[in-house]
Order: sequence, then structure tokens, then C-alpha cells
Amino acid sequence: MESLNFRPIAVVSSVFRQKFGTPRQPGIAPTSWAEVKLNPWTQPEEALSGLDQFSHIWIIFHFHLSKTETYKPKIFPPRLEGRKLGVFATRSPHRPNSIGMSVVKLEQVLNDKIIVSGIDLVDGTPVLDVKPYIVDTESIPDASYGWIKDVERNILEVVFLKEASNKLMKLETLGEKLRSVIVETLACDPRPNLYRQEDSPRQYRTNFFFQLDNYDVQVEFEGRKRAIVEDIIKVEK
Amino acid sequence: MESLNFRPIAVVSSVFRQKFGTPRQPGIAPTSWAEVKLNPWTQPEEALSGLDQFSHIWIIFHFHLSKTETYKPKIFPPRLEGRKLGVFATRSPHRPNSIGMSVVKLEQVLNDKIIVSGIDLVDGTPVLDVKPYIVDTESIPDASYGWIKDVERNILEVVFLKEASNKLMKLETLGEKLRSVIVETLACDPRPNLYRQEDSPRQYRTNFFFQLDNYDVQVEFEGRKRAIVEDIIKVEK
Repeated sequence: MESLNFRPIAVVSSVFRQKFGTPRQPGIAPTSWAEVKLNPWTQPEEALSGLDQFSHIWIIFHFHLSKTETYKPKIFPPRLEGRKLGVFATRSPHRPNSIGMSVVKLEQVLNDKIIVSGIDLVDGTPVLDVKPYIVDTESIPDASYGWIKDVERNILEVVFLKEASNKLMKLETLGEKLRSVIVETLACDPRPNLYRQEDSPRQYRTNFFFQLDNYDVQVEFEGRKRAIVEDIIKVEK
Repeated sequence: MESLNFRPIAVVSSVFRQKFGTPRQPGIAPTSWAEVKLNPWTQPEEALSGLDQFSHIWIIFHFHLSKTETYKPKIFPPRLEGRKLGVFATRSPHRPNSIGMSVVKLEQVLNDKIIVSGIDLVDGTPVLDVKPYIVDTESIPDASYGWIKDVERNILEVVFLKEASNKLMKLETLGEKLRSVIVETLACDPRPNLYRQEDSPRQYRTNFFFQLDNYDVQVEFEGRKRAIVEDIIKVEK
């Protein structure tokens, strides 16, 4: 079978600037936001007309940071903590074709860009398609979960040290939004399995940085109970 | 931006053998079925393990029959009967990247293939990915429809002439299933807009054939009210 060629229609500018900290599913961080900027050849103003009538849309994208040199038919999903599953039974980015799809909330349609929230997209993600969410066929509340329902989602308590809190307050509206995104993101424990497990040899590492918007967030994890936001540091461009 | 290369992981063998008659959304013909056969390089037995725990899955596929030589940012969606919309506000196959996605019911996972139902996939469709449907993020019952809610879905009455009924009865179980697929498909009026509109110059054409499984279904349309199934003819291979 021949191979198929696709050309990105847009690129994502996301509050999540790196893989670490980017939620693994949409909706986990409802406050998080991104701008999807259409390439001029798509004739955005025309191609987007009518989209603003939908509350939710699909972003079909390329997992551009996933390494797919060697294909593995079974993978370790983060929520399963060590158990392996067939790649097609998971939403892992490490797939034979590194295509992802996320349903996100549509906030605004501008001339040549779309503002969305509740995202799981990292900055720089190339977008292959945008489609409206069709509620009458795509909302299936009684669909069964598969293995996902058996997975306990560990919820961390998130606390802010005074230093961090003060800096966020000074950022006013942006600071409030960042605070929400930090809580939503850390509560789900963004650490890779290896660092998260109590008996892991890498458990010694408890300090992490992740960049949100133009700010580095410095976090310390206390086992699987608490995430302490220690500082917010402006990233010099 | 560079172009991206993908290699089909599977191909669809569908009860719908041609574009005409293939539903425009999944779920419209719940009885319809297809087999998704994985290519050996995906190592199907391993790559599919765990998928059988899900009731619904996504098929990400290539709209291989859509003609995309000349890109048009606005299109005429069939349900809008003449009004134009931006392509990204629709699920039209005529998109800048001809990638489709359909949520379908998972019936069975075999060694190297998957049986699905409630499909809108035409025979021969190349598949780019298979993903589980994640009900907690992807079922959004209160999402708003956009323009789709304003569109009246014309429901045709479907009747069978004796000739057609008898032939289906002789096919026993297959005949019963085909009968259901015929009713589900014709009720939604699969005709292109040009033939469907009362004042269309092509309204004179009322007879259509479409192939389901190995059978040609001969239909006559009575305006926008009835579809009469006149005969079922075995297709010689």
C-alpha cells in the first residue's frame, strides 16, 4: 500500500511549552488554552466560516515530539503503571502513524486563528485538520471504558508557596489563569511512571520544572500526595 | 512546513461497496458492518491486545475516493441543500487533508482483524489508525450542534416490492441484515442534492442502483417521500 502525504493546515501556540506538564487527555485542564493559527493557503476566513456555531471541535494533529523510529506493537500507558497493552487499545502518541485527535472547547474564531481551551496540545504541534464535534453521533455516554475504568487516577493536593503565590498575583488575570492551569495539571501527576512509583530507583528525584506560557513553574513532589509549587520564574526569551 | 508521510495500517472490507449509499455519518445504519484487516507489519495480535474491552472505537482513515486536486475553502454540505460553509465547519470528505474519523461499534477482535458495525466507511478505505473511544473525555452530551441542529433530516418511507423481499428472504440471516441496512440507508435519502431537490433539472432521474455486499439494490425514489426497493441482484464477480 502506498504511503499518504499530508500538509499541516495550522500550528498550535499552546500554554504548554514542553511535553512534561502537558495533559495526557483533553479536558483535564479546562482552563488551559491554545491558539490554532491557520496557514494562509487554507484561506482561513472562508474555510472557518460557520465553525463558530459549534461549542466543541476536533483538532487532528501530528504527535511531532513522539519518537517513532522503532515501532513497538505494545506499549506502557502511563495510567497503567507498568502493565503493557496493544498500541491500538491506547491513546499513546507512540503509534504506527503518529496522528492524535483531541476534542477541545471552542472559545473564539478570529480571522485566521481559533482560540480553544481544555487542551492537551504542546506548543508547536502541527495540525492536520479541524472538524466540528457532532454531538448526535459522537457523544456516546453509555460506551464502555475498557481498561481505563479500572485505573485509579491519583489526585495530588496542590499547594503554593508564598513566593509563587505572590508572583502569580502580580500577573493579575494571566496569573489567575496560570494558577488554575497549574492546579489542574499537577493534580493529575504529570510525572513519568519511573519517577512516580514509590519503589522506583528514580524516586529520589522530586524537583521538576515545567514551562507554562512564558513562565517556568518550579515544583516539588511529596511522594504521591502533594505537589508544592515553589516558584514561578519568567523565562527570558 | 514540511509534509508528513503516513502508511496505512489496515484496509476496510465494507458492506458498502461504492460511495453512493454509504452513510454520511457513522451510526446512521447501525446494522451495517465492516471488517478492518490489519497489515502484518503492525503485528496485529499484539497491537490489538486489550482493544476488546472497549464497546466503541475510532477509525481514522483516508477519504481515498475524494477528489482533492483543487482545494476549495467552502463547500456544499449535503444536509444544507445548497448553502455553503467553510470546510472546517463540516465533515465533508473534500478537505485540505482528506482524513476522516468515525466512531463505530466494536463487535469483535480477531487475530488480525476487527469487526465493526454502524459504519460510514466504503469498501477499500485505507485506515491510518485505530483508537479506543474514551467516554469520559469524548462523550459531551451538552455540546452544541452548530448549523446541524437546524437541518431537517428528511426521512423517507422505505418499501420493498415482492421480488426484492423474496430474494432477501432466501438469503436468510444475511438477507435480514441486508434488509435492515437497506432501510437504514435509504431512509436518510442517499441521493446527491442535485437529484433530490424537487425543482432540480436532474429530478427526472429516479432510479438508482447501489451495491451492498455482493448484491445490487435497485431503487426507485418517489419525490422526497418514498424509496421503493424493486430488486436485489447478485453481482457476478
